[in-house]
Amino acid sequence: MGAGHTRFGALEDGPRALLRGAVDGAFASVDKGVERGALREAFLATLGFGGWQIGNSSAVLLEEAAGVGVPTTRVENACASGGYALRAGVRAVERGDAELVLVAGVEKMTDVTNARRRYWLGVSGDTEWERLAGLTFAGVYGLIASDYLHRHPRGADAMAEVASKNHENGTRNPNAHFQKRISREEVLRAPRVADPLGLYDCCPVSDGAAALLLVPADRARQYTDTPVYVDGLGAGSDRLAVQERPDLTTFEATRRAGAQAFHDAGVDRERIDFLEVHDCFTIAELLALEDLGFAEPGGAVDLTLSGATRASGRLPVNPDGGLKSKGHPIGASGVSQVYEVFLQLRGAAGARQVPAAEVALAHNVGGAGATAAVSIFSRG
Amino acid sequence: MGAGHTRFGALEDGPRALLRGAVDGAFASVDKGVERGALREAFLATLGFGGWQIGNSSAVLLEEAAGVGVPTTRVENACASGGYALRAGVRAVERGDAELVLVAGVEKMTDVTNARRRYWLGVSGDTEWERLAGLTFAGVYGLIASDYLHRHPRGADAMAEVASKNHENGTRNPNAHFQKRISREEVLRAPRVADPLGLYDCCPVSDGAAALLLVPADRARQYTDTPVYVDGLGAGSDRLAVQERPDLTTFEATRRAGAQAFHDAGVDRERIDFLEVHDCFTIAELLALEDLGFAEPGGAVDLTLSGATRASGRLPVNPDGGLKSKGHPIGASGVSQVYEVFLQLRGAAGARQVPAAEVALAHNVGGAGATAAVSIFSRG
Repeated sequence: MGAGHTRFGALEDGPRALLRGAVDGAFASVDKGVERGALREAFLATLGFGGWQIGNSSAVLLEEAAGVGVPTTRVENACASGGYALRAGVRAVERGDAELVLVAGVEKMTDVTNARRRYWLGVSGDTEWERLAGLTFAGVYGLIASDYLHRHPRGADAMAEVASKNHENGTRNPNAHFQKRISREEVLRAPRVADPLGLYDCCPVSDGAAALLLVPADRARQYTDTPVYVDGLGAGSDRLAVQERPDLTTFEATRRAGAQAFHDAGVDRERIDFLEVHDCFTIAELLALEDLGFAEPGGAVDLTLSGATRASGRLPVNPDGGLKSKGHPIGASGVSQVYEVFLQLRGAAGARQVPAAEVALAHNVGGAGATAAVSIFSRG
Repeated sequence: MGAGHTRFGALEDGPRALLRGAVDGAFASVDKGVERGALREAFLATLGFGGWQIGNSSAVLLEEAAGVGVPTTRVENACASGGYALRAGVRAVERGDAELVLVAGVEKMTDVTNARRRYWLGVSGDTEWERLAGLTFAGVYGLIASDYLHRHPRGADAMAEVASKNHENGTRNPNAHFQKRISREEVLRAPRVADPLGLYDCCPVSDGAAALLLVPADRARQYTDTPVYVDGLGAGSDRLAVQERPDLTTFEATRRAGAQAFHDAGVDRERIDFLEVHDCFTIAELLALEDLGFAEPGGAVDLTLSGATRASGRLPVNPDGGLKSKGHPIGASGVSQVYEVFLQLRGAAGARQVPAAEVALAHNVGGAGATAAVSIFSRG
């Protein structure tokens, strides 16, 4: 019933200041007000990128949220940390342990040396079979995209459309790292990073934080007249190393997480008004549409090229710009998706408002599909 | 309703093999049997010491538990990771999300270079005010012990008794890292590490893993005739840097976690038959007894010197040898405490069985008291 967000980008602030900004924003967003002293538990999503506080970082959250002694837990599932922290927070509320729970995510990625950054960018992939062999995340997603394009050659245009669309959306999000339109042609002509992925197929390395406040559903109207409800949670895992999976072009973790979330929420896909999906690389948005059941295998190409996933389309995807344009501060990304859901379902998304948005889905992936969390929300 | 444990010590196995050993043991411990395919969720406690898999390590649990696609989450609160992973696991069961949940902890600490080990041993303390200033954990606990001994000079003997008692207990635990008796005199005469802490005041650096299987309370007898119940959970946090706390000789995080656990379980301290407390340094066992309410400030000295906390005493503390003698593979330690509770409450602890043990408490601390988790258990 509250949510806060810093700018994403190459920022001057360190992780503590970023967290403070997001948490302050979350408390300030509660229409009818809430005492900070009412906070009963807090969850922190962070990879601890660059080693700012590798162990016990959740206690920092306590300090920056000005709580006193409340339990804090770090939840880390790489880029899916935020989605899993939300899951942990919802469970804490639903067990009745806490009336007011904070879920925050943060990452500070831009102030480390290039050598350290390469190390930290790789640590969420499989260490034994991928990282130590020199395979980077762009490399892994490049393999996935190669296989996908072999089967669905028009996927290259769809990937370019994903980048172009998400950059267009980002221009309407003042918190987005990039505020710059790019055309499909620019995407296709960009320097190669890991063929077939070019520069504009890859999300940036960003700093940023986001925070959410959760209360039991039956108490929400005590704090706001426009509550947003968590209707369903789902999560799933898969082998870390992609070489151990039978098919590169589908994330079993997403499939399981999505099925569980739809079952938990008791809604059909037709009810979803917009999606926040994990587009760390453009190919990942296509996979997400298919693995979440919004398209058949290969069907995300036509769905995307039809314009349906644009802000003006029938199923907007990543109206905030997505990881691609908004930025991807690892631990913050999954929490940031829910911040966007919160704004949209309250009708408070300004220039990027999805008309009549009532039900939304957020999809967060860890690594190259080793972990995934899916959540479904509705407005009150 | 199931629990498994590897040896703790300087072992040849890597983290995956250690996890597999503990998880296999947990499944094998279920009297009436259970299908691995029934597993619905899994939580991994690990610091990722040495960097074996810094991000997304929870997916490894899936591979080593032979599950298919089940959600896995890494919970990291430094040395308290295990206690918090249990908390997360219990909540998953109690929300009704899963009938069978796995909670496992692992650390592989002995195969890293000395330079890397020093780095990794420091990462759970405050980075800004302690680690970067050169303060190690032994240094922080040395400061705490200095202050404590200034107020309670006989504490030095009590600390020596903690070491001697826990080493005695460790000789009856085949999984313990150390299997060696030491006298109080040896403890007091040992080389200094961080005055007033000597070599035998400090727990070792160990490899090891432990695992637990949880089911809803009303289903437990379907799997075993001797179930162990989780009756209460508590957790609390504190400022990371000890310089920011008003009193060095008490852990506010433990006080809050203990109060919450006793409230949640609805039992009095008199009902507790034995304790597993976080004795990373001998001073920490004294603090735990006081912060958990089993002694007044300074009262842990007499309680300990009276012999009450020995295996044969009225309130045995760390019958398995504690971190001090059993070893302290960071992520595994909090889970290992619950393994001991499981054995004891089923009457299966062999040579170290606490007579007529019915109710027990486990206490797990992260860093120098930045985070703490307390859980209370009873036998069926």
